Amino acid sequence: MTFDIKQAAAEAKAAKNAIANLSQGERKALLESIAALLVKSTPAILEANRQDLDDAREANMSAAMVDRLGLDEAGVKAIANAVLEIANQDEVLGSIANIKPLPSGIQVGKMRIPLGVVAMIYESRPNVTIDAAALCLKSGNAVILRGGKEAQHSNKALAAVLHQALENAGLPTGIATVIPVADREVMAQMLELSDSIDLIIPRGGEGLINYVSQNSKIPVIQHFKGVCHLYIDAAADLAKALPILENGKTQRTGVCNALETLLVHRDIADEALPLIDQLFADKSVKVHACEASLPYFKKQSAQLATDADWDAEYLDLEIAVKIVDSFDLAVEHIQQYGSGHTEVIVTENLGNSQRFMREVNSSVIMLNASSRFSDGGQLGLGAEIGISTSKLHAYGPMGAQQLTTEKFVVYGDGHIRA
Amino acid sequence: MTFDIKQAAAEAKAAKNAIANLSQGERKALLESIAALLVKSTPAILEANRQDLDDAREANMSAAMVDRLGLDEAGVKAIANAVLEIANQDEVLGSIANIKPLPSGIQVGKMRIPLGVVAMIYESRPNVTIDAAALCLKSGNAVILRGGKEAQHSNKALAAVLHQALENAGLPTGIATVIPVADREVMAQMLELSDSIDLIIPRGGEGLINYVSQNSKIPVIQHFKGVCHLYIDAAADLAKALPILENGKTQRTGVCNALETLLVHRDIADEALPLIDQLFADKSVKVHACEASLPYFKKQSAQLATDADWDAEYLDLEIAVKIVDSFDLAVEHIQQYGSGHTEVIVTENLGNSQRFMREVNSSVIMLNASSRFSDGGQLGLGAEIGISTSKLHAYGPMGAQQLTTEKFVVYGDGHIRA
Repeated sequence: MTFDIKQAAAEAKAAKNAIANLSQGERKALLESIAALLVKSTPAILEANRQDLDDAREANMSAAMVDRLGLDEAGVKAIANAVLEIANQDEVLGSIANIKPLPSGIQVGKMRIPLGVVAMIYESRPNVTIDAAALCLKSGNAVILRGGKEAQHSNKALAAVLHQALENAGLPTGIATVIPVADREVMAQMLELSDSIDLIIPRGGEGLINYVSQNSKIPVIQHFKGVCHLYIDAAADLAKALPILENGKTQRTGVCNALETLLVHRDIADEALPLIDQLFADKSVKVHACEASLPYFKKQSAQLATDADWDAEYLDLEIAVKIVDSFDLAVEHIQQYGSGHTEVIVTENLGNSQRFMREVNSSVIMLNASSRFSDGGQLGLGAEIGISTSKLHAYGPMGAQQLTTEKFVVYGDGHIRA
Repeated sequence: MTFDIKQAAAEAKAAKNAIANLSQGERKALLESIAALLVKSTPAILEANRQDLDDAREANMSAAMVDRLGLDEAGVKAIANAVLEIANQDEVLGSIANIKPLPSGIQVGKMRIPLGVVAMIYESRPNVTIDAAALCLKSGNAVILRGGKEAQHSNKALAAVLHQALENAGLPTGIATVIPVADREVMAQMLELSDSIDLIIPRGGEGLINYVSQNSKIPVIQHFKGVCHLYIDAAADLAKALPILENGKTQRTGVCNALETLLVHRDIADEALPLIDQLFADKSVKVHACEASLPYFKKQSAQLATDADWDAEYLDLEIAVKIVDSFDLAVEHIQQYGSGHTEVIVTENLGNSQRFMREVNSSVIMLNASSRFSDGGQLGLGAEIGISTSKLHAYGPMGAQQLTTEKFVVYGDGHIRA
């Protein structure tokens, strides 16, 4: 099967004005119609998903991957609800901020506008197809979706829903293109199309992100690994610290907002680490401890940490532990080894809390709250199209607003420059 | 002469916290001290500039280039004043926007932070060295400046001022690095250093920008050409349109915010074009006219425009002219041929003015005002570090705020995710 990505991208570019110029009410109605059609099309979507699951089992795919691929009636309903949530969010387009008169007499403001055409490259989870499309439509962008081969039947069924909703609204289907093939050749061709595509968002393993970053002529939003730190300050309340540690490390291990490194201030180590030893033993968390903290781990075997452990994203019931002699050394450690994702401080000391929030420049900084809150839904964005771990354009979880930009609008009355 | 750019970038990275963590008052004092030292060092700066000018004349450099290179006492004073203006601008760092309580009980806001290390690659004009450094310091970034060979003595003298001010304030000089050599090899090495440099801004010809974009492992802000349009609507007031046309096309021709294409609505052509013919004849503006507009140009020879004229950035007393049959066709022409820089509408029709502001998505959209206002100083940014013609991260003239990003800050009191 071949697919003409150049033609598809040209159609997306030609269609982008149609979505950008809809009124807020029309865009909301379109999203609501997608949600309704999703629910109505549940049998067809589940049938397509069953084909993907059959193929996955035949290909001996891992249980985790099959789990991420599978949909049931409640799953389709949840996807539809996410679309409704996005539909009901505040409008992100068209507002003009800070109109100011300038000495020359002109008035200058900034208006929020769509990026144009957004392409998304992702794997397995079929819900991404609809989440990404809904966020792009909300922000007035045309979207090109390239999902994984393993979800191809599901994605085709979801694409049919998107196209039906667009057609019902009298809009060109080029507004939402789902690429029906997953071969690398089509992706490689797509990365060249900087004339028609404005942004590429790859979501997947480090290999995919590196490949896209290095080969794309189009700007790329990168989401690299999450080496998230929890720092338990000398002035921490352990009744808060322990649940935050347990939640961050053990609730779900395979996600990027799980904790990977624990830093404990020396002055609270004697009190905290025996409790933490018990917690890790209860939850079967494997420990890589620095020399100073190693003797505290008695309920289970802990290994001496190596340099590689401070960089490690275990994505498993496994953690690196280090005692730090001061607040400053905790910040320094995070600045050296952090991946720009999420860092947590637990403290009752106001000054330290303020310094941590100010001086640690990862994309999400938490005071006395679990790293697990670090995703678009939990942070109030409704859904997320990705989490940026580089600072350009967007930093952290990205919702609809992060798929827009601002242009200058200038009002004169015949003004010329002196 | 060799220069260890890897070492310099590592020093910039090590120094970035020192500038990021200064208080607003300390950063303001640093900028004021740079301004004062610039004025005090005027003789040394002018002496260095004379050496560059001597070299330029020896190398038979073009008069235009020599003109851009030259400094006098008033020029140094103007550079110092720009630094003071930046010092006095609103603070861009540390503010926390929109703290909102969420259903889980956490409170979420966004704090504005520096990018980290910003590198700038530019040519000739020595004022860029200080403008760029001042904007980076204002926004809490360390900066690496790589100017052109032709300005090397001037840039060395200006670097000495920056370093003196940093030393006087007890700050590491790694905060502002001026690369003393201009060879391509050092630049090529710099483009690899994504571990220490967060953003590259090339300012110069299309060749330089393409080279940097294609070879950089670091995010790049692109400033491509300015093919700026003036659209004279059927409902235009010609008493406003003609001065705006004259100002935009003839005040300075070699700049990116000069007009390159004029679109005239058919219904006003009979009235407008004879006046425009007279204006262009008076100002010796060469005309490339569409078939319909060609007969109007009688005071001088006009050529029939070719397809290439609609894309042309003449940067000279030369313009493309087209009659359009409708408002929609004017917008379509701009969307097809615009370069994302600046577009102007002259009209007294409220509906058309609103549609133009909304539907044309170049980085600066003007109503009844000259395209020449499209620069950072004129739009109220104090100075500009560049003009982005791509929509990612920043769009249009970039001041200090565009050298920052936002991180999420989350306040809990022991909150964990359910």
